Amino acid sequence: MSLSVHFGWPLRVYWEDTDAGGIVFYANYLKFFERARTEWLRALGVEQHALKGQTQGMFIVSETQLKYLGPARLDDQLWVTARLIEKGRASLVVAQEAYKMTPTLSLGDPSQGPKLCEGHIRIGWVNADTLKPSRIPQTILEKFE
Amino acid sequence: MSLSVHFGWPLRVYWEDTDAGGIVFYANYLKFFERARTEWLRALGVEQHALKGQTQGMFIVSETQLKYLGPARLDDQLWVTARLIEKGRASLVVAQEAYKMTPTLSLGDPSQGPKLCEGHIRIGWVNADTLKPSRIPQTILEKFE
Amino acid sequence: MSLSVHFGWPLRVYWEDTDAGGIVFYANYLKFFERARTEWLRALGVEQHALKGQTQGMFIVSETQLKYLGPARLDDQLWVTARLIEKGRASLVVAQEAYKMTPTLSLGDPSQGPKLCEGHIRIGWVNADTLKPSRIPQTILEKFE
Amino acid sequence: MSLSVHFGWPLRVYWEDTDAGGIVFYANYLKFFERARTEWLRALGVEQHALKGQTQGMFIVSETQLKYLGPARLDDQLWVTARLIEKGRASLVVAQEAYKMTPTLSLGDPSQGPKLCEGHIRIGWVNADTLKPSRIPQTILEKFE
Repeated sequence: MSLSVHFGWPLRVYWEDTDAGGIVFYANYLKFFERARTEWLRALGVEQHALKGQTQGMFIVSETQLKYLGPARLDDQLWVTARLIEKGRASLVVAQEAYKMTPTLSLGDPSQGPKLCEGHIRIGWVNADTLKPSRIPQTILEKFE
Repeated sequence: MSLSVHFGWPLRVYWEDTDAGGIVFYANYLKFFERARTEWLRALGVEQHALKGQTQGMFIVSETQLKYLGPARLDDQLWVTARLIEKGRASLVVAQEAYKMTPTLSLGDPSQGPKLCEGHIRIGWVNADTLKPSRIPQTILEKFE
Repeated sequence: MSLSVHFGWPLRVYWEDTDAGGIVFYANYLKFFERARTEWLRALGVEQHALKGQTQGMFIVSETQLKYLGPARLDDQLWVTARLIEKGRASLVVAQEAYKMTPTLSLGDPSQGPKLCEGHIRIGWVNADTLKPSRIPQTILEKFE
Repeated sequence: MSLSVHFGWPLRVYWEDTDAGGIVFYANYLKFFERARTEWLRALGVEQHALKGQTQGMFIVSETQLKYLGPARLDDQLWVTARLIEKGRASLVVAQEAYKMTPTLSLGDPSQGPKLCEGHIRIGWVNADTLKPSRIPQTILEKFE
């Protein structure tokens, strides 16, 4: 499905996201990536809160690798992407990038502004009570085909 | 201007917003309120980052009063309002509320779902370097007429 | 017990606490106050996580009122106090203050530095599953006598 | 200097650190690591806020790699380490780990509890205004010898 190949989500930088260096605090890109990843999963039909009720399972982040390439500032608009790059039985790896939108670019292809951050996020499927890893339900795996 | 009377902004609850009680962490409503307040100011033509460059001044939060009326949970959609209730020479008071959107309500009037949080936020105008209070520039005050 | 009358907790300001204004982001004082309040409760013998297992109840913040009096900056050391000012059957009100420690003051009375923030926090006792208000267990109320 | 080889810092898990999964939100380990890294630098004589005034330079995080090995919960005490593993002209790589302290272990060697998170953080030296990479001042590099 094309959504599993390419997905983007717009974000605005607020005071809460910045630090005394005048730029977005680096740890907050993990939050930005998660917002985009959540919306990507939702667009694929994977509602995390509902799933927890149905399957007693949930995705949990098990590894993160990020590179910071440039600063974002207050009021900037960002475009955050999500793309599946590895599909295992118990975990997925999602490649994610954050771009700065510019007035002209936002009208066209927002992912062609300067890239500010890129990374890989591994999410594993676990039992929601024990947090033990388990196999991703087939109904979820099918969403990524 | 009607925007200064009534404004709403939609938000989604992500993992980052929740705590181990299974609900939105109360301090995060200050962030939600600020996002809505920022977009309300932007809609009125007040761009905070640009203003800082032009006037060497900025708004700073000087008082907050919040009441928590009900819980929000992961994946909930919220509708956050902002409304000017006091306009002084050096500060403004903004009344804000957060409502839970429901599938049917979100199509009609989103502010008629259950109210989760309400509060008053006082923002004062300060010199960006010294953080000393000063008079709000007339060009900004006019936006609220 | 004197702890319920006066308690203080030291904190350091890190990058995560600041915003692009170069100072501590105002919403973070709610976090600072909660850290101090948690340690005050712990000093009184009230362990929140353990209580949740024993009583199926927990404290939840229901009202916050804060005034911001001065800025804190990166690397500053703060002294955050907690003091019970109202004890009801279902809720408590805690007065809290944040002071900036100075090199000389920290050796003496840290609460005599400049006051940066003050507020009242109402915490209510709720059933941990339903989040419905209920009476504070007597064994907890006794800690505040 | 032995501090650059091994350093540990204690932390407590508060409500602000947890998410609706009942455990510490993974992005917050970047904050925990930064608190320990800041205190490690301070112990080595590197005060970041003061340095910014003196040198117009500052450290900025340029890469993060984290693995999440186990959950931390509300009220847990953690022991977070920092150790220099690479020293370049313009950047340093710091290896960091978070351990759960246990009542007996905290009296002895806190770093022998279960390991919850481990990672590598690359920090680069930049001009505080332009954010352009530059060489780490010699007076700072000497601290790590």
